[in-house]
Amino acid sequence: MAEAFDALELIKLKRDGGTLSTAAIDWLISRYATGTVADEQMAAMNMAVFFRGLDSAELSAWTTAMINTGEQMDFSGLGRPTVDKHSTGGVGDKITLPLAPLVAACGAAVPQLSGRGLGHTGGTLDKLEAIPGWRAALSTEEMLGQLDEIGAVICAAGSGLAPADHKLYALRDVTATVESIPLIASSIMSKKIAEGTGALVLDVKTGGGAFITELDRSKELARTMVGLGADAGLPTVALVTDMSTPLGRAAGNAVEVAESVEVLAGGGPADVIDLTLALAREMLGLAGIDDVDPAEVLDSGRAMDVWRTMIAAQGGNPDAPLPRPRETETVLAGGDGYVTRLDALPVGIAAWRLGAGRARKEDPVQAAAGVILHAKPGDKITAGQPLFTLQTDDASLIPRARAALDGAWEVGDQQPDTEPLIIDRIGA
Amino acid sequence: MAEAFDALELIKLKRDGGTLSTAAIDWLISRYATGTVADEQMAAMNMAVFFRGLDSAELSAWTTAMINTGEQMDFSGLGRPTVDKHSTGGVGDKITLPLAPLVAACGAAVPQLSGRGLGHTGGTLDKLEAIPGWRAALSTEEMLGQLDEIGAVICAAGSGLAPADHKLYALRDVTATVESIPLIASSIMSKKIAEGTGALVLDVKTGGGAFITELDRSKELARTMVGLGADAGLPTVALVTDMSTPLGRAAGNAVEVAESVEVLAGGGPADVIDLTLALAREMLGLAGIDDVDPAEVLDSGRAMDVWRTMIAAQGGNPDAPLPRPRETETVLAGGDGYVTRLDALPVGIAAWRLGAGRARKEDPVQAAAGVILHAKPGDKITAGQPLFTLQTDDASLIPRARAALDGAWEVGDQQPDTEPLIIDRIGA
Repeated sequence: MAEAFDALELIKLKRDGGTLSTAAIDWLISRYATGTVADEQMAAMNMAVFFRGLDSAELSAWTTAMINTGEQMDFSGLGRPTVDKHSTGGVGDKITLPLAPLVAACGAAVPQLSGRGLGHTGGTLDKLEAIPGWRAALSTEEMLGQLDEIGAVICAAGSGLAPADHKLYALRDVTATVESIPLIASSIMSKKIAEGTGALVLDVKTGGGAFITELDRSKELARTMVGLGADAGLPTVALVTDMSTPLGRAAGNAVEVAESVEVLAGGGPADVIDLTLALAREMLGLAGIDDVDPAEVLDSGRAMDVWRTMIAAQGGNPDAPLPRPRETETVLAGGDGYVTRLDALPVGIAAWRLGAGRARKEDPVQAAAGVILHAKPGDKITAGQPLFTLQTDDASLIPRARAALDGAWEVGDQQPDTEPLIIDRIGA
Repeated sequence: MAEAFDALELIKLKRDGGTLSTAAIDWLISRYATGTVADEQMAAMNMAVFFRGLDSAELSAWTTAMINTGEQMDFSGLGRPTVDKHSTGGVGDKITLPLAPLVAACGAAVPQLSGRGLGHTGGTLDKLEAIPGWRAALSTEEMLGQLDEIGAVICAAGSGLAPADHKLYALRDVTATVESIPLIASSIMSKKIAEGTGALVLDVKTGGGAFITELDRSKELARTMVGLGADAGLPTVALVTDMSTPLGRAAGNAVEVAESVEVLAGGGPADVIDLTLALAREMLGLAGIDDVDPAEVLDSGRAMDVWRTMIAAQGGNPDAPLPRPRETETVLAGGDGYVTRLDALPVGIAAWRLGAGRARKEDPVQAAAGVILHAKPGDKITAGQPLFTLQTDDASLIPRARAALDGAWEVGDQQPDTEPLIIDRIGA
């Protein structure tokens, strides 16, 4: 018989700075998944973990225990190596859209099990659902078939992977325990390990538009997740990347799909191209594919071919026009100069308030809602020139979105030094 | 309309070291009482308070908000001043039993609304229920009538006083947030302020058998509660008293009633007499009765008269024999010397395991269960002499009770210095 524990004693132990045994963590998480440990007890435990942390053995046990509450997938039967990418979330972060078909076009298989957006960061599935006909839900068989034939799938993660994490995340979301490095790390890694990918590249965002804003904590999150990957035998590399300003020139749903298609067509903003290629190189490196240059594959149009096939395989029409907003409002520059600062968080909040994101899980999103950025940090602007275009189907949403942008940018006389997009790389 | 708040934002604010406004605390506690704020959110908030504390304005607001969830009583119509005593709980702490009739015999009215025991400390009501016929539940009218006529009442606190505290305490009990000074202080003081006593004396226990074991934290708790009393216009004094060793020579239910009756009859252990008189003097001082010496009143037998009347008024027969245990086991001294240490906590646990206390609120207690101490620190003992007698109705409970006492005492060659019983006095 498995060892029995007392939830109260375990909370006390963690609260007072003690260390939870692997058996205790396994008991706690499995009993929480089945409801024997109550929500209020787990809420108190999460807050104790927020303050006391988890050491590497506890964290590894916590992650494994979450994986063990559900099923694990297996891609070993595929004819090519699998490699996945996960971003901790940012504003305008549409990288998965060009990246998955690009890496597939280079020879790997990319099982991109994704989520929906909550709060100011968008969700990959919400973005793709702007494409007429595209559907996020695939059966495991459909997903495996598509991976085998096309090499890339972006679909909804099934609820069978680490179900304790689903329950725990919903609890953390209402009890102010989201922003805990060990809890974030185990949440992400439990799903990725359960998913069964052969390798993993993490894009850990840092700065004002990220969930973790401080660079040292972002690096700590990256190191923690890379360590959990190593513990589980999953080769993992993390790039720590800047999220002080939005990625690209669009934040929303259809607007981000359009920008991704521009990149696949050989155009698009430089930062989106750069980050897509950097992540592709890391993914290919982990997949053992070292004779293909993703920049060449992108130029060749083969990534676009995979994109079109991938979208069509999930019911989407890659040639259909994307939804257009009923209402737009453009914010103009007040004076001349250089954009010296443009904050990601207010842009994300503006897009969210325009209808691109949801306040509650059950809310719908607007496909055409979002913000177009006509200028980015370092750009020269002149008075009266458009700075932002706000898009929505509901004009009543515009004033609060506009208000979010107050003070979100700064114009100066000197062209600012641009910050590096990729700040650090953390490998196992 | 009252200001609206978001529980999530309030938890985050406290978690990150911020200060909650009075309006925010009022919203939180009142919504928790009505169920709008969920148990898991309040559990996370409690744990954040455990780590971050509450400043004096927050604590005052928290206490007032709990009082405002229920009714408040009023003793101003009585012909004499009211004064209450509250102990934070200890092993062998039967002081309320002789104290309430003594202070009443000195001219004050003592509305002693009490609780039942949980864990290793006994409950006053559990002890008195060992007296055949005695009942704890009185209506408000019965209580006021008894206070007016007799001057002392020891009865169950109604659920109408600070109901948020009842709910919050039950939550803290399962989420490891009992041991928080602001939460303990506001729990105790909200009930005492709502009760409407004219003055209050606190007996804050410290040492191994107390809920707060460290002296500096016990003093902090005492200062915090005295401050809350001052904020509410309730004159409050606290004595910080030693709970490293049991009070008196009996821990249990009927055994503690018997010892209390001994004190009222002019006998009994010195520490019980000393603490009863010290608390009585503080209570009389706050009640403005400075011309009566409680030691003389105790000697005179007038406190015993009030006891007998008080017990009879609640259906008890003060002359009925107290229940006797079916089983006893006596632990003998192994060698000669002086008792240099006798720990309160293991004695409390032994009494609890013998059936004197309850593990869950709904459990019954045994009237005759408990531990008799034949020697206390400083006493000279000889090999083979009785040290403890364990009493219970269920012989199967003896081995685990006996085990709790392993290592609970020490015998040495030198008579030890006895520690002072009253360590500190904290007034407004």
